[in-house]
Amino acid sequence: MPHSLLRPGSTPPSPETLARFARIVGPACAISNPDDMTPHLHEWRGRYHGRAALVLKPATVGEVSQIMALAFETRTAIVPQGGNTGLVGGQIPFETGNEVVLSLSRLNNIRAVDPVSNTITAEAGVTLAAAQAAAEAADRMLPLSLAAEGSCQIGGNLATNAGGVSVLAHGNARALTLGLEVVLADGRVWDGLRSLKKDNTGYSLRDIFVGSEGTLGIITAAVLKLGPRPSSQAVAFAGLSSLRDVARLFAMSLQSAGPALTAFELIPRIGLDFVLRHGPNCRDPLALPYPWCALIEISKTHAEGDADAAASAILERAFGEGVIGDAVLANSLSQAREFWKLRELLSEAQKQEGGSVKHDVSVAIANIPAFIERASKAVERLVPGARPVVFGHYGDGNIHYNVSQPLGADTAAFLNRWDEISEAVHAVVLEFDGSISAEHGVGRMKRDLLARIKSPVELDLMRRIKDALDPRGVLNPGKLL
Amino acid sequence: MPHSLLRPGSTPPSPETLARFARIVGPACAISNPDDMTPHLHEWRGRYHGRAALVLKPATVGEVSQIMALAFETRTAIVPQGGNTGLVGGQIPFETGNEVVLSLSRLNNIRAVDPVSNTITAEAGVTLAAAQAAAEAADRMLPLSLAAEGSCQIGGNLATNAGGVSVLAHGNARALTLGLEVVLADGRVWDGLRSLKKDNTGYSLRDIFVGSEGTLGIITAAVLKLGPRPSSQAVAFAGLSSLRDVARLFAMSLQSAGPALTAFELIPRIGLDFVLRHGPNCRDPLALPYPWCALIEISKTHAEGDADAAASAILERAFGEGVIGDAVLANSLSQAREFWKLRELLSEAQKQEGGSVKHDVSVAIANIPAFIERASKAVERLVPGARPVVFGHYGDGNIHYNVSQPLGADTAAFLNRWDEISEAVHAVVLEFDGSISAEHGVGRMKRDLLARIKSPVELDLMRRIKDALDPRGVLNPGKLL
Repeated sequence: MPHSLLRPGSTPPSPETLARFARIVGPACAISNPDDMTPHLHEWRGRYHGRAALVLKPATVGEVSQIMALAFETRTAIVPQGGNTGLVGGQIPFETGNEVVLSLSRLNNIRAVDPVSNTITAEAGVTLAAAQAAAEAADRMLPLSLAAEGSCQIGGNLATNAGGVSVLAHGNARALTLGLEVVLADGRVWDGLRSLKKDNTGYSLRDIFVGSEGTLGIITAAVLKLGPRPSSQAVAFAGLSSLRDVARLFAMSLQSAGPALTAFELIPRIGLDFVLRHGPNCRDPLALPYPWCALIEISKTHAEGDADAAASAILERAFGEGVIGDAVLANSLSQAREFWKLRELLSEAQKQEGGSVKHDVSVAIANIPAFIERASKAVERLVPGARPVVFGHYGDGNIHYNVSQPLGADTAAFLNRWDEISEAVHAVVLEFDGSISAEHGVGRMKRDLLARIKSPVELDLMRRIKDALDPRGVLNPGKLL
Repeated sequence: MPHSLLRPGSTPPSPETLARFARIVGPACAISNPDDMTPHLHEWRGRYHGRAALVLKPATVGEVSQIMALAFETRTAIVPQGGNTGLVGGQIPFETGNEVVLSLSRLNNIRAVDPVSNTITAEAGVTLAAAQAAAEAADRMLPLSLAAEGSCQIGGNLATNAGGVSVLAHGNARALTLGLEVVLADGRVWDGLRSLKKDNTGYSLRDIFVGSEGTLGIITAAVLKLGPRPSSQAVAFAGLSSLRDVARLFAMSLQSAGPALTAFELIPRIGLDFVLRHGPNCRDPLALPYPWCALIEISKTHAEGDADAAASAILERAFGEGVIGDAVLANSLSQAREFWKLRELLSEAQKQEGGSVKHDVSVAIANIPAFIERASKAVERLVPGARPVVFGHYGDGNIHYNVSQPLGADTAAFLNRWDEISEAVHAVVLEFDGSISAEHGVGRMKRDLLARIKSPVELDLMRRIKDALDPRGVLNPGKLL
């Protein structure tokens, strides 16, 4: 078969091709030494391992453009990579060693911060934390916040449409994106770096690239929205008897605080117990052990008044109506951080309890209680004694439905049933017309699953878009679609 | 040339094809009588007039699906139409009479209102006002509001990514869209009617159809976000000496009120004078004639406190710092409506002053003052005495840069220079990397302009998307692209 008909990634690039790639970025930034390649070939939790023909670290959009033009010409598979913090393996090459990893980390300039238009223009390799800091230096806030923010990068955040803890009030990465600069599959550069809130001059190309996991183009820079920094924040920790009460408390909080409600996180008893058991210096803010807890954050800008007063009003009403059993309002920034720590340590603490089968799912808000009840019944039927640890971004309908192994069970044997358990949980998600990947994306992990659960029409539409924008299939082949 | 190779719309559909179309919807809903067709063939301002082979009024998604399958088979050009309130002719067929108009007006069911998930599921033909009313009946708000809301329809709102007066706090139609049901060019139905805030399972097909002006698919239903209804609103009318001061007042208002700032509209002296002269029972809220006025709206939900207090705090600070010369806070709902009326009557009042060349443009917020100054100089150079009436959604960077004829000039002669004037204004917009259609879309009006001003890369990307989703070119040919 002539090389031109082979699927990119199915054969190794020739030595000549690799030499041409290396010349684009210079020898220091074309890495083929196994030790130096290592950080780019392994997912941080150890679930995905790959090999690569080369790791390229371009420093400019021009270099990225040349790399893609050459990849297009030679049908070389390119795996774009940001901070390598993804959870579904989208950024890791396959085991063939035929692919070239394209690290965006050296495109790390903040091109502009405009506090009047409330925008930041950042290159793909800027870490989220650096972008947040640049916004703060201009007395603004970039309202995107993730556990990985110290190392994840803006390009990866947009390519995966990152979520996190600020979505409730500010939306996901897509909602913050005004403009993009993208290198296309054939090396051409689309300059869509506009700072416009309103622009109805054609198809929303921006939204096609956001969330496409590097399969349609390489995002090299973006204009993102900034907001005012809050002048006061209140964080409350409430104990509740049932999911129905959690639903009522969420409705009350939203109705009352409106856009000032910036977080509403669900924490289950078992998860809190894990954190209290394994976390450093953690204590239960409440005197009694409630089946469910909610972490509520309210943020106010200057003239909107006091966040504590707003939070107190909600808690008092909820207590009066019997919705909550107890609640504590953080009385200092350090206590607020302690409350947040209880939420943030949930994943980590779960590790100490043995194997865990994880799911990142979403359903409509109204369906959360019924979804959790039904999924937990399905899991219990399948693996008696398995311990669902159900937490997450309640206000976004985004539940991290994780299942810890039964007490004393064999970890390997339990984890061997991952697919079986996932299938049961996902079946319930689909009954509720939910999503089997709310914020983590598809990558390698859920690609085959997607092919099974999406409608043929939807898969065909995605395939048509892919073929239209990456006709030779050089962009992250085998991921997502 | 075989019929199959002709461009849809270039030849009349055969009588057999028309009869097959008619059978799908039944004779009462397949309109060929000229009188009954008339409302579907003319743009309400009289700028666009077309002819059609047939007007079809399907009542179900199934009928729309059959219509598109037949259009695909027979290569018949279809012009989708909602409330026929568009301003750029996208919904009007061409003069050939070879196209079939597909009116969505009978798909007018509200399928669901979910006050817990805060969503409404409405069919394409539901008027925006009916959707707003359904939300209100459930004590919620659909935060999309346009002058045409009594007759425009949800399908058209989404197909054109409608803007309006609620964009500042709530975003445009795209930002409110969670899920879509779309009939594709070949009649297949994409069921993407999900109520999920977070769903990272592939390309955002939803965003491809929103704003595509009926050229990629027929939106038949949508899930839209609802919000809490505000419990208090404050509307203020402020007088300012310069655009620099308007910029300062906007920054102050946003910093202070954050997401509670729900409108910040710019009104120029000349526009206010037109309204005072021609509007019924209009009076200037301010004692002195300021060069610029701003209408500020602040909306609060229950526990967020008092909107009047928040607005007063902003106005007091602005007055203290010399940013505003004067301001009035509406002391009743009826006074608030009077203030809004001054803004809403601007277009109407301008008509009474003779010919007007209109532009719907946007630039980054920081560039608004410089854009207005430079555009006004360009217009004055071209047509001495021409009177720019520059108003609009300041907080969105969206300026309706309209130019009234010089006093006493010949209206026809002035309007003959429309293209020349537009070219001058648009040239300044493009200098600032702005948009030549912020909220009205492209349609027929700006299609050729788009081809001239968009980069070849961007046009190629749009063309690829169009070819991928409408390979036979049956969907609204000759519009947008």
